Amino acid sequence: MQIAEPLSIAIEEFSKLPGIGKKTAQRLALFIVKNETNFAERLANSIIGLKTKLKLCERCFNLSEEQLCSICKSNKRDHTTLCIVEDINDVIAIEKANEFDGVYHVLGGVLSPLSGVTPDDLKIKELLKRFENENFKEIILALNPDTEGETTTLYLAKLIKPFGVKVTRIARGIPIGGDLEFTDEVTIGKALLNRIDL
Amino acid sequence: MQIAEPLSIAIEEFSKLPGIGKKTAQRLALFIVKNETNFAERLANSIIGLKTKLKLCERCFNLSEEQLCSICKSNKRDHTTLCIVEDINDVIAIEKANEFDGVYHVLGGVLSPLSGVTPDDLKIKELLKRFENENFKEIILALNPDTEGETTTLYLAKLIKPFGVKVTRIARGIPIGGDLEFTDEVTIGKALLNRIDL
Repeated sequence: MQIAEPLSIAIEEFSKLPGIGKKTAQRLALFIVKNETNFAERLANSIIGLKTKLKLCERCFNLSEEQLCSICKSNKRDHTTLCIVEDINDVIAIEKANEFDGVYHVLGGVLSPLSGVTPDDLKIKELLKRFENENFKEIILALNPDTEGETTTLYLAKLIKPFGVKVTRIARGIPIGGDLEFTDEVTIGKALLNRIDL
Repeated sequence: MQIAEPLSIAIEEFSKLPGIGKKTAQRLALFIVKNETNFAERLANSIIGLKTKLKLCERCFNLSEEQLCSICKSNKRDHTTLCIVEDINDVIAIEKANEFDGVYHVLGGVLSPLSGVTPDDLKIKELLKRFENENFKEIILALNPDTEGETTTLYLAKLIKPFGVKVTRIARGIPIGGDLEFTDEVTIGKALLNRIDL
């Protein structure tokens, strides 16, 4: 098989991305070949920009262009409400919901004894340090409702309670647009237990 | 919603690629952020390489790093058998099959009166010119078996016949691994008509 080397290199690199197989990689590479040079340059620059322009916010460990991220710097946000999340993706997901105007703390993972993730591997020390400098009224634990997320939630709740702030967790229940019939029994059970007054 | 600009730019650019929506684009961008800088650089360079290192072969219009592509230059290929295809993708597909050792001619499209594609828009003039300099024994028409591909096949067959070379087309039939039950009747009809002796 004789394929021009720059093409096979690009296919190789694209197929290292998650969810991109060789066939999709080839389609993407040929799309770029056939498109204007400008597009290839903009795409390549945006990829480089991801590594050169972004770092982690020193306070909350969200992605940022400067020492502090735009959320930590903003005076339009409520700096007394802290939302603890596992990962940067979760900050984006919550920001998209447009319901939260507090600040974040990105743990960078969840406790997982089986995979050897201990509290020292997460930004928990840094979280506790924030209580010295910041004045929180409520801590929202927004970790995924799986075993590891639950473990981490309980661990953090115990750790934070002594600071005398309100500690909450995001609600678990039937998702909007969901169907009772096709919802698993644990979720239905939690949704019943956590029912709210109308 | 507050997302760091380099991230939103990369998501924007990635989502311009075919089959990549905003969610996938975000996943790809965050994968790159979390991966080593080397990977981002290799990916970006390979994208730039697609536009700077590749051009079209002057003879067959396949992708090439030099004036002539590696297939046209190779003396291991049979330069008397010419395979006419619609697009660069088709060269790759045929090369992968490892059954063809001749040379190619990429038309750059198929005739389509409805979309206004006329013979002048395709590399047909260039194809006819090759008959002056090269000594073909067989021309294989390997266009897609759809209406436009068929039209183009018939048009080219008529055009090439006067040169006195053998003109063939690739077989249409049941694909390997296919199922008669689920094959459309036109394909089954063609497969019966084009049955071969055992």
